[in-house]
Amino acid sequence: MNNKVYVGIDLGGTKILAVILNEQGEVVRRAETATLAKEGADAVIRRMIGLIRDSLTPELQLVSIGVATAGTLNAEEGIVTRASNLDWNDVPLGRRLEQDFGVPVNLENDANAAAYGEWAVGAGQGTKNCVYVTVSTGIGAGIVSGGQLVRGRDNSAGELGHITVDMNGPRCACGNVGCLELYASGTAIARSAAQRAADNPEQAGLLLAKAGEETLTSRHVAEAAAEGDQLSIQVLREAGLALGNGMVSIIHVMNPEVIVIGGGAANIGAPLLEPMHEAIADRGLASMRNGVRFVSPTLGKEAGAIGAALVNRS
Amino acid sequence: MNNKVYVGIDLGGTKILAVILNEQGEVVRRAETATLAKEGADAVIRRMIGLIRDSLTPELQLVSIGVATAGTLNAEEGIVTRASNLDWNDVPLGRRLEQDFGVPVNLENDANAAAYGEWAVGAGQGTKNCVYVTVSTGIGAGIVSGGQLVRGRDNSAGELGHITVDMNGPRCACGNVGCLELYASGTAIARSAAQRAADNPEQAGLLLAKAGEETLTSRHVAEAAAEGDQLSIQVLREAGLALGNGMVSIIHVMNPEVIVIGGGAANIGAPLLEPMHEAIADRGLASMRNGVRFVSPTLGKEAGAIGAALVNRS
Repeated sequence: MNNKVYVGIDLGGTKILAVILNEQGEVVRRAETATLAKEGADAVIRRMIGLIRDSLTPELQLVSIGVATAGTLNAEEGIVTRASNLDWNDVPLGRRLEQDFGVPVNLENDANAAAYGEWAVGAGQGTKNCVYVTVSTGIGAGIVSGGQLVRGRDNSAGELGHITVDMNGPRCACGNVGCLELYASGTAIARSAAQRAADNPEQAGLLLAKAGEETLTSRHVAEAAAEGDQLSIQVLREAGLALGNGMVSIIHVMNPEVIVIGGGAANIGAPLLEPMHEAIADRGLASMRNGVRFVSPTLGKEAGAIGAALVNRS
Repeated sequence: MNNKVYVGIDLGGTKILAVILNEQGEVVRRAETATLAKEGADAVIRRMIGLIRDSLTPELQLVSIGVATAGTLNAEEGIVTRASNLDWNDVPLGRRLEQDFGVPVNLENDANAAAYGEWAVGAGQGTKNCVYVTVSTGIGAGIVSGGQLVRGRDNSAGELGHITVDMNGPRCACGNVGCLELYASGTAIARSAAQRAADNPEQAGLLLAKAGEETLTSRHVAEAAAEGDQLSIQVLREAGLALGNGMVSIIHVMNPEVIVIGGGAANIGAPLLEPMHEAIADRGLASMRNGVRFVSPTLGKEAGAIGAALVNRS
């Protein structure tokens, strides 16, 4: 009996998630613990090592460890050069894990790891060219091309939220102008809705009632739209059209078979996604947009950990 | 002595170019002949076979053949599904060459093949992530990521000319809106210059003198700009800024180490490229734009043939 297993870790700002995969890429165990980043990098790493140790039993033969993490990486040296959510600078995470477990350790950008996971054993399974777009507070993407993860020079490839969709548009916090994220992210939806509500208070009753005492978010906009609120529907329509424009650009650059759309804002559904599809149908090159499948992710919060475990398995 | 050689063909609308590469990727022989597409696909393929035969001598051991061609391909089946410059539909070019030479034959999109060639043995040599942008009548690109050619589903990846830079802009012939090509291609430069000359005839003397009896082209604009013509300088500046915006998007998506800029319009030089760099410096994410080298291609017209020979060599 073959007991080879692959550990995948998602190192988040609040939780460390571990999965153990068998040779078929199936999750056979899962565990999580609090990150407690404020205790410092050493404590976090010790907690991660403990989590892995507790999940392994003597009959399992550990082959490799993959870690998905936010921030910038020097993957070759196994160093997290900067992770603002953990307040880490130049932490040699890979070396520490290698010393402890005596197996190869691979660090991966978390968005890229999630994309790889969804491609390998999730919504993109069976394809060779897959783009995983996350529409949430911001917009990000991970790309698999020809069965290979597109990492780029610094593991930073896939910054789809910061492609220009209007070079005459407003300045983004990133420094670029007219970024997709300014028009189609959850943040953009909330901002646009708040602006419209302020400009047209007589049309904003339902929306403002949804928010109540809270700060207006894209969730409130989605809830009001679901009840037929015209202001909210219009806000989501404009965001969806802009999202479609970003999709056209990525379709024209990457020529994918499948686009996985995940993230909180993607849960808004038809009021956002129908205008997105409308823009793609109207504007995409027929030979490239035809045949692209749009699907939802299937791995949930484990995508990053699973992808990290799988990406350098062979 | 090792006499293994790799044939690369660039099948163009007017010429068939053949190169023979040794194991080091060096061109050891080159030959060309007229395509004469109007004689039909069979005649073109016979001419191509003759060109290869004439270039091979008995001491050379042919390993494989790669063909770079315009149009759409079914690379797995070795079929040129549609090449409008040759008026070809579903021509089984790969199989014909395989039958004749008894070696593997690989068909490749010509822009992608050229990018691969420049990456492997030209201006991008030694990197892992390289984007080759051609600024000519139109704008196209070929992408190498992690040492792998980015082909996409239909070998159509890299349509950089048809990413949106202004989602509120005019409609492009491709169907999309505000395409980069509408602002920064040679065609766009000529169109913009002609429009400005018509609107401001008193400022257009030098430019119109350059064109003389000919239709105004980007070459005339470049010549006038080189002599200090303000109208032409302004036209090129706007095109360069738009080109910079397109570069920012591709830098954010692909995170390359090097961008090779080729094509006729790229020869315009500083009046186009300085504003391009200005836009990149102003708008690109510092961590991603810093360290990107911008270089000129080194393989000239042989890039496609060389890339086709090299891409599936191993």
